Amino acid sequence: MSGTPRLVEVRKNILKQNDELARGLRRRFAEAGVFVVSLVSSPGTGKTALLEKLLGVMAERHRVAALVGDLATENDAARLARSGAPVRQIVTGTVCHLDASMVERALEGWDVGALDFLFVENVGNLVCPSSYDLGENLRMVLLSVTEGEDKPLKYPTIMRTSDIAVLTKMDLAAAVEFDCETMRRNIGEMPVFETSAKTGAGVRELAEFILSRR
Amino acid sequence: MSGTPRLVEVRKNILKQNDELARGLRRRFAEAGVFVVSLVSSPGTGKTALLEKLLGVMAERHRVAALVGDLATENDAARLARSGAPVRQIVTGTVCHLDASMVERALEGWDVGALDFLFVENVGNLVCPSSYDLGENLRMVLLSVTEGEDKPLKYPTIMRTSDIAVLTKMDLAAAVEFDCETMRRNIGEMPVFETSAKTGAGVRELAEFILSRR
Repeated sequence: MSGTPRLVEVRKNILKQNDELARGLRRRFAEAGVFVVSLVSSPGTGKTALLEKLLGVMAERHRVAALVGDLATENDAARLARSGAPVRQIVTGTVCHLDASMVERALEGWDVGALDFLFVENVGNLVCPSSYDLGENLRMVLLSVTEGEDKPLKYPTIMRTSDIAVLTKMDLAAAVEFDCETMRRNIGEMPVFETSAKTGAGVRELAEFILSRR
Repeated sequence: MSGTPRLVEVRKNILKQNDELARGLRRRFAEAGVFVVSLVSSPGTGKTALLEKLLGVMAERHRVAALVGDLATENDAARLARSGAPVRQIVTGTVCHLDASMVERALEGWDVGALDFLFVENVGNLVCPSSYDLGENLRMVLLSVTEGEDKPLKYPTIMRTSDIAVLTKMDLAAAVEFDCETMRRNIGEMPVFETSAKTGAGVRELAEFILSRR
């Protein structure tokens, strides 16, 4: 389409502005001593379910909070608030990803210095969030065993911008004949955690890893 | 961000151009007597697996073909080609959805008049494809039982632009304690089909419906 070159140029400016805002956020988080972890995945991979468990485990000894993004509904914030941790919902409308300005606005009036860990759950999307730095210290991409072992190959940009991979719904691995070896080979060189929010398997190991990275 | 209003304006132009191209495609399809069905869903919902079964069933008596979009890899085209139907892969690079110009380019040199049905499998994404008309006659949104019953509420734009909903992986319904009644209520007023590419359940009913709509 003839409009594409102009769109690319405008998009570059948007991304540049986002990068600047994200750098500012990262500085602010460092000064406040809060470690920020973002979660990206397809819709329905289980970001909220895993985060619910993680917040539960980590809140035992640390001050944790979460921001959660969705196009519509505040259901996820309500679910996560059951953990007792402070939670804020970001409703993006039709926007397919979080950006640094949304995170900044959502933090208004919050004393991030009172936190040890802040989790940021992105909109369910394996493509668009990859371009937007949110100022996080660690980005984890979640892949469920029900999605198939080929997803890391088909969504390479999100894999490249993530620091660790978390396999979810491991309790369903046998039912879907999940081939863990192929999945790990397709993921390549990054730490991989096998978890189940249903049984709780792997959640403490993941929490220990996050604690060790602060 | 200060760049946002300009982005919105450029995006409107892009969508307007896409709509014009899509209208042209729709006219061309009508003249050629081919009925076009598009598939949208999250990554890993099982678009390719369902399409493999559908092509198999429909190719018994009709001339069918498929276009399949992905950011990277030509794996899906290779899988679908096993059905014997002509298949072309559209590799989108970093673009998170198909648009009408990609469909038009992919059809170059193809005699669509020799087809009864053309399937177009979009990139796995529940957000971005909703804005792009591809000139299709029927858009089906796929939702797997493993993704949770809340997805229609959280991704309202894709639901509004779809004509029918197809539930996939019904063979896993019991294992994930899928609540079909809640899902159907959340989907609202559109035809819903319950399918399993693994067992083949529901595939013939879906094929019959598509045949009846031509």
